[in-house]
Amino acid sequence: MTRSEHDLIGDRDIPVDAYWGVHTLRAVENFPITGTTLSSNTHLVTGLAMVKQAAAQSNQELGLLDDVRAGAIIAACKEIIAGKLHDQFVVDVIQGGAGTSSNMNVNEVIANRALEILGHKKGEYQFLHPNDHVNLSQSTNDVYPTAVNVATIFGAKSLVVAMEHLCDAFAAKAVEFRTVVKMGRTQLQDAVPMTLGQEFNTYAVTMGEDRARLAESTLLVHEINLGATAIGTGLNAPVGYSAIACRHLAEISGLPLTTSVDLIEATSDVGAFVHLSGVLKRVAVKLSKICNDLRLLSSGPRAGLGEITLPAVQAGSSIMPGKINPVIPEVVNQVAYEVIGNDVTITMAAEGGQLQLNAFEPIIVHSLTKSMRHLEAACFTLADKCISGITAHEDKLRAQVEHSIGLVTALNPRLGYSTSTAIALEALATGRGVAELVLERKLLTAEQLEELLRPEHLANLGD
Amino acid sequence: MTRSEHDLIGDRDIPVDAYWGVHTLRAVENFPITGTTLSSNTHLVTGLAMVKQAAAQSNQELGLLDDVRAGAIIAACKEIIAGKLHDQFVVDVIQGGAGTSSNMNVNEVIANRALEILGHKKGEYQFLHPNDHVNLSQSTNDVYPTAVNVATIFGAKSLVVAMEHLCDAFAAKAVEFRTVVKMGRTQLQDAVPMTLGQEFNTYAVTMGEDRARLAESTLLVHEINLGATAIGTGLNAPVGYSAIACRHLAEISGLPLTTSVDLIEATSDVGAFVHLSGVLKRVAVKLSKICNDLRLLSSGPRAGLGEITLPAVQAGSSIMPGKINPVIPEVVNQVAYEVIGNDVTITMAAEGGQLQLNAFEPIIVHSLTKSMRHLEAACFTLADKCISGITAHEDKLRAQVEHSIGLVTALNPRLGYSTSTAIALEALATGRGVAELVLERKLLTAEQLEELLRPEHLANLGD
Amino acid sequence: MTRSEHDLIGDRDIPVDAYWGVHTLRAVENFPITGTTLSSNTHLVTGLAMVKQAAAQSNQELGLLDDVRAGAIIAACKEIIAGKLHDQFVVDVIQGGAGTSSNMNVNEVIANRALEILGHKKGEYQFLHPNDHVNLSQSTNDVYPTAVNVATIFGAKSLVVAMEHLCDAFAAKAVEFRTVVKMGRTQLQDAVPMTLGQEFNTYAVTMGEDRARLAESTLLVHEINLGATAIGTGLNAPVGYSAIACRHLAEISGLPLTTSVDLIEATSDVGAFVHLSGVLKRVAVKLSKICNDLRLLSSGPRAGLGEITLPAVQAGSSIMPGKINPVIPEVVNQVAYEVIGNDVTITMAAEGGQLQLNAFEPIIVHSLTKSMRHLEAACFTLADKCISGITAHEDKLRAQVEHSIGLVTALNPRLGYSTSTAIALEALATGRGVAELVLERKLLTAEQLEELLRPEHLANLGD
Amino acid sequence: MTRSEHDLIGDRDIPVDAYWGVHTLRAVENFPITGTTLSSNTHLVTGLAMVKQAAAQSNQELGLLDDVRAGAIIAACKEIIAGKLHDQFVVDVIQGGAGTSSNMNVNEVIANRALEILGHKKGEYQFLHPNDHVNLSQSTNDVYPTAVNVATIFGAKSLVVAMEHLCDAFAAKAVEFRTVVKMGRTQLQDAVPMTLGQEFNTYAVTMGEDRARLAESTLLVHEINLGATAIGTGLNAPVGYSAIACRHLAEISGLPLTTSVDLIEATSDVGAFVHLSGVLKRVAVKLSKICNDLRLLSSGPRAGLGEITLPAVQAGSSIMPGKINPVIPEVVNQVAYEVIGNDVTITMAAEGGQLQLNAFEPIIVHSLTKSMRHLEAACFTLADKCISGITAHEDKLRAQVEHSIGLVTALNPRLGYSTSTAIALEALATGRGVAELVLERKLLTAEQLEELLRPEHLANLGD
Repeated sequence: MTRSEHDLIGDRDIPVDAYWGVHTLRAVENFPITGTTLSSNTHLVTGLAMVKQAAAQSNQELGLLDDVRAGAIIAACKEIIAGKLHDQFVVDVIQGGAGTSSNMNVNEVIANRALEILGHKKGEYQFLHPNDHVNLSQSTNDVYPTAVNVATIFGAKSLVVAMEHLCDAFAAKAVEFRTVVKMGRTQLQDAVPMTLGQEFNTYAVTMGEDRARLAESTLLVHEINLGATAIGTGLNAPVGYSAIACRHLAEISGLPLTTSVDLIEATSDVGAFVHLSGVLKRVAVKLSKICNDLRLLSSGPRAGLGEITLPAVQAGSSIMPGKINPVIPEVVNQVAYEVIGNDVTITMAAEGGQLQLNAFEPIIVHSLTKSMRHLEAACFTLADKCISGITAHEDKLRAQVEHSIGLVTALNPRLGYSTSTAIALEALATGRGVAELVLERKLLTAEQLEELLRPEHLANLGD
Repeated sequence: MTRSEHDLIGDRDIPVDAYWGVHTLRAVENFPITGTTLSSNTHLVTGLAMVKQAAAQSNQELGLLDDVRAGAIIAACKEIIAGKLHDQFVVDVIQGGAGTSSNMNVNEVIANRALEILGHKKGEYQFLHPNDHVNLSQSTNDVYPTAVNVATIFGAKSLVVAMEHLCDAFAAKAVEFRTVVKMGRTQLQDAVPMTLGQEFNTYAVTMGEDRARLAESTLLVHEINLGATAIGTGLNAPVGYSAIACRHLAEISGLPLTTSVDLIEATSDVGAFVHLSGVLKRVAVKLSKICNDLRLLSSGPRAGLGEITLPAVQAGSSIMPGKINPVIPEVVNQVAYEVIGNDVTITMAAEGGQLQLNAFEPIIVHSLTKSMRHLEAACFTLADKCISGITAHEDKLRAQVEHSIGLVTALNPRLGYSTSTAIALEALATGRGVAELVLERKLLTAEQLEELLRPEHLANLGD
Repeated sequence: MTRSEHDLIGDRDIPVDAYWGVHTLRAVENFPITGTTLSSNTHLVTGLAMVKQAAAQSNQELGLLDDVRAGAIIAACKEIIAGKLHDQFVVDVIQGGAGTSSNMNVNEVIANRALEILGHKKGEYQFLHPNDHVNLSQSTNDVYPTAVNVATIFGAKSLVVAMEHLCDAFAAKAVEFRTVVKMGRTQLQDAVPMTLGQEFNTYAVTMGEDRARLAESTLLVHEINLGATAIGTGLNAPVGYSAIACRHLAEISGLPLTTSVDLIEATSDVGAFVHLSGVLKRVAVKLSKICNDLRLLSSGPRAGLGEITLPAVQAGSSIMPGKINPVIPEVVNQVAYEVIGNDVTITMAAEGGQLQLNAFEPIIVHSLTKSMRHLEAACFTLADKCISGITAHEDKLRAQVEHSIGLVTALNPRLGYSTSTAIALEALATGRGVAELVLERKLLTAEQLEELLRPEHLANLGD
Repeated sequence: MTRSEHDLIGDRDIPVDAYWGVHTLRAVENFPITGTTLSSNTHLVTGLAMVKQAAAQSNQELGLLDDVRAGAIIAACKEIIAGKLHDQFVVDVIQGGAGTSSNMNVNEVIANRALEILGHKKGEYQFLHPNDHVNLSQSTNDVYPTAVNVATIFGAKSLVVAMEHLCDAFAAKAVEFRTVVKMGRTQLQDAVPMTLGQEFNTYAVTMGEDRARLAESTLLVHEINLGATAIGTGLNAPVGYSAIACRHLAEISGLPLTTSVDLIEATSDVGAFVHLSGVLKRVAVKLSKICNDLRLLSSGPRAGLGEITLPAVQAGSSIMPGKINPVIPEVVNQVAYEVIGNDVTITMAAEGGQLQLNAFEPIIVHSLTKSMRHLEAACFTLADKCISGITAHEDKLRAQVEHSIGLVTALNPRLGYSTSTAIALEALATGRGVAELVLERKLLTAEQLEELLRPEHLANLGD
């Protein structure tokens, strides 16, 4: 069973049950790229429906849309925001046309659902039209970027929650390992003592900083260009529309949105996404560095550093019995590499934008969405499947400190660099201990030495 | 309804209908990253089943596996190769563990299907065991890379077909536009005349070269490491296994596979994927450049270059009636940006590999697969939805050539650079034509000029 | 003439005139990579000297360094800050060792110059030692990052000045072209009217936003880790040293520096550089996009868009007389590509850092320095050699607007999308004007049309 | 003392001693970007002079250039090829204009030197003109790419030599460490035994493969477009010129160059550089992976893996006496990161090329040159300052193997996966040895065990 719809290219049959229409059909046929549809991006579908609701309320308020049609459109939007009809968003996530097909898709779904609400059949656009009514006072070029902003804010907020959860996991371990003394390393070479708690605290601090950067950069996305219409000049948008629409959208979304001061700039510019992606890349770099550390510190069990043990979450090998691998840090590393690649994709798409519009916003959105979602999943997985179950090999760590050459650094201020170097080299060559050599040469008394070498002092724990 | 399975962490309930088992369940829980499962990668699932079939046949031939079990395993593999049971490959495409979870997943599915074939229930591993029988003589570290190689070859072959199709489309237009003279441009400035056919032929040639590069680099992936087991030393693999397994796999897959000369190097090295991704990036760069050109040449309709018209495939705007946008080249540009980003992801994953194994091969595979598939879709879409329908504005193009200052270049050898420059500058300043000025100054006779300026001569079409 | 110096590897002859010593010599021999020396990075040499001066003043204040030696060290530092002795910084800009060789180089130069000031010969380290006195209370791991921070702030400030200069140039053109009406374009297709002034204003606004982002991200670099010593535990640094040294350095540099709250985190973390590089990449993306636009808008002179003319700054071709190319935007594009590549380099170096220190800070510094300097040069060149001399082809632009189909968009609210589309398509098919068709069909009166189509109204200039 | 020269912009004073002229002066003023001049790229200056010599010989052969002028031009070219006058190549390495300024620079230097040879003064272009004679039958768009190809081949050949040297160093260590048994690791976890010789052999093999890939991809650069002139149509180049010029250039350079089949494609296409850069990136990835391994294996000396010791080449710390850092691998890592960043730069520049020419070839050349040179330096430094001096801790390595749980893998075929897993877990939990447990449980006799566990057998050394 089909209905017929018409566009500038000609007539097409549409499945009678479909809420989408001819424009969506064309897009589906034109972009058979990934097989992943817009419906997979819940935040974006929701954001689009919120923008459409805000527009309908604004048009109603301005007397441009009658109460009946406005009411039906608003009702349809609310259903989508509530999670209904998402399966009707069938255009590919990678699409040409700067988001036009996504906008057409949402216009058609809302129009057809509104028609049903009004007692008409789908496709009877003479009563309520996807473009003339649902898209009234709008253009893809302000609707789509605004919806993307809303979706991005939702996505970033979720990621912030995940990062906080991970920070908490690191911080809990920092407390747990507060007195576990170990060798600090620079350039993978034994350096000077510290505590394992200090090491995990570093991870908590560094993730905390990233969380702050992410929150900052998300602020930039709160500026929207609704009312800009085609190129930012506001052509066809009634006077006052921008401000009213922004007010409605802020209320609907619960977000403190503002209208850009320069709508022309805002319409062509994707700088805020480049910026945000740069911050996500920073998060990825940090996460990857931390996971590299975790894999290194847990290497072994017998021929590695063996400082900590990660919880076993699955068998590690199909051939080596009992082998447990650091699969959780490994998956986080891979997510990080993906996010870093996405940043390059976003950079190229941003650079390729021309004149009054960036035609490549769909790939920016797709990449940014993947980066945020996968980082979110990675943070939760890392916290819950790995960090919270880490245990330390306390005795081994203390023994390493006591046997280390790095202890000589503590004697440096007393003995000078040259003498200390000589002792270090002798310790290294003979395999003997630093303390032993210092006493033998009567460079310090046993008491002086004892005080200087207290590990807690070395780790600068405030004594 | 569930059955209970056991691994080194403990017991778990498995849905009674599931062909996968406890190892797969752990992996699903550990890697809730993308929501996209291994089943989405048909080539890889097929590749894994082919490797398992080859291993079973080899084990049977070597007397390590009895005919009953071997027969059941082989039968199960053939079903998977035929496209069955793919929904049972439920681990996430981004996974820790260097592919162990993918290998475990396929071991379990095959074991349970083989058990059914033998008249047992799923989970009755005492009769046929995922590790002891399906994985016999193997390790994830040779199974997974080998299956990835097979899958990559299949993917690359499909892409080559798509590229050939696109080449043909360009070549057809090169013939069609053979005599359409136009201005060539360097640095976006009018340069000297050429034909539109020459321009499209360039696209055909350049894609043809890429196709050759892709075929070359795919050859590198025909070297497999089956028989390497854990780290390439072949521990646990019986004498002769490598060669026999390679022979069986070549036969099953229909591919001229060979065994790497150095299995240890082959096991840790992902250079062939870095290389292949580099070639895909090259393809992406070329495609993107061509699409940039197409969008530029079709800019307008009235305030752009307007040399060609791309076929209208959908309405271009929700607000600007009649606007047709170059959505097909735009979607190809976006695929290209994605592929370039994927190359960075693959680079980082390759660089991060340590010692005897690269733990990050899953993200390499995932990225490479996306790049190949999306490029394939992009080539077909570009050829069929865009190139084949392009039309030229022949009259406008010829008029531009005749009015161009670039014609003066043809006079350069006769008049010298200084005189030619003076004429060019005067033409530019006055808006007059080059021919007019040359005749006025009696630098050439009308006949001499006519001969020199024949556009066909200028475009060097061999007269 | 040489003097002999000793390190843990053995004795080496040093040219008697060299202020650098044996450690620097080893580094020069070990890192023959680029041929570009530390001396090329004026800000970094200055930053290192400032840190050394601050350390000497702090050690003197704390009674750790006698007044004579402190005075000589401080005097030597001031000479370097004043620009002297920079040719003595001879280690390669790409160096292993996390900056140790740079720190050793500055220690040795200062020590030898201080020895001279004190009336000793170079190399008489028994009187004043590079490590025991110049490096007192310090480690490479706090000196080098702190100096890098200082150098980065200086570099970023210079870049901000250049960006402001470029913004001013854009803003001046925005005023000059305030009433030049032109066609706006989306996806390279004619869209709706705007003014050329609005277009240039967009460039001013977008660069202004980037300037703000750069200033923000530079704030992060004001946090230093001086006093952290080897790994941030402050081992060997006297109580109170961090705060005192930060105070002195703030005074010497004139910068509002603060000490990081967590010195261990600060010592291993290079997140601030990743962040800053991300912002520089954003600047590069914007600059590149603008230059792409400028090249496009100035394409021609006869077969291009030809909206504006860039000033001729050199002959454009060795063969095509009179050809003028957009060489200034082209060089800016290339700088942008370099900056984007540098960002990937920095990302990888940041990700590769392990445990308590990032060993790859030299390549981060080298890349960041290049990015800032080349962007600075690019901004000045673009402003002075290109933007300030741009002229517009006003008549051509107005004619294009009047002939455009995009005008129909203005009628959309009156006529509805379907009718407008029909008119647009007829205009496109027949080559006739939109106004003509609307009047012919009596859809509007001439007066209504006139009012709707006033270009100033269309461009939304506030009438 | 100056002379006056004229171009289309006006008159300029040129230092009387300068071999470069007004076009070069404009370029120097227009591109004050990096401060690094063309003279730094010896291969490119040489390549340009070779192309000019080939062109002069061809023009002479075709009767287009008289013997006197041809002779003088050829003599000047030979001087430059011999290394003279390189200081006259003063344009910035990053320049707008697709290489025009580099071509103008070489034209002017050759013209002025040829004028001197002919007894004229510099600047007396009426006797011999940079464009009319030196550039005769040429365009920047064929001269510059061809010279770049020649330079690239020279650069790649040097790099191949360096890579061979490094391979040899790895291979020598592979022989030296042939019988040093150690634990192989996958995912940083103890896996199964191998020899250190096998590990170093892997590095030799992998570098050897890269060397082969580099040689292959360099073949692509042997196709030149000399004779293409402006856009590949060969306008202004006499019939037969391409073939003759290629023959002369092949002879002068000693390289087996060929002319591209499609000169239009060859003129716009930079695919060969994208390809070559992709291969250099692959080399960088491998080198970086190897250096990561080396730093990891030499970590310690007491709290790290401590398998090998890298030679001490400099003191490692300004504060930690006796600390030796892996500075050589570290500098190689940094070069690798730079090369990977350069690849992104090249990718963007390639993608940004438009229509008949890529205007961004200078940044491609600059990036490619840096990548090749720095990799060359890195290979030599790594081989000579690090690899050749590596020593192994043989006793420690053997002890680790004997104490490892990985030994259980060898029992897997005998005992089955489940039993082996149980033993491995007990060994792990109790700290006891695998052998001990197997005997205790009477799973194997002592003799069976001894045979299975012979490390040489495990490492599969062929007994």
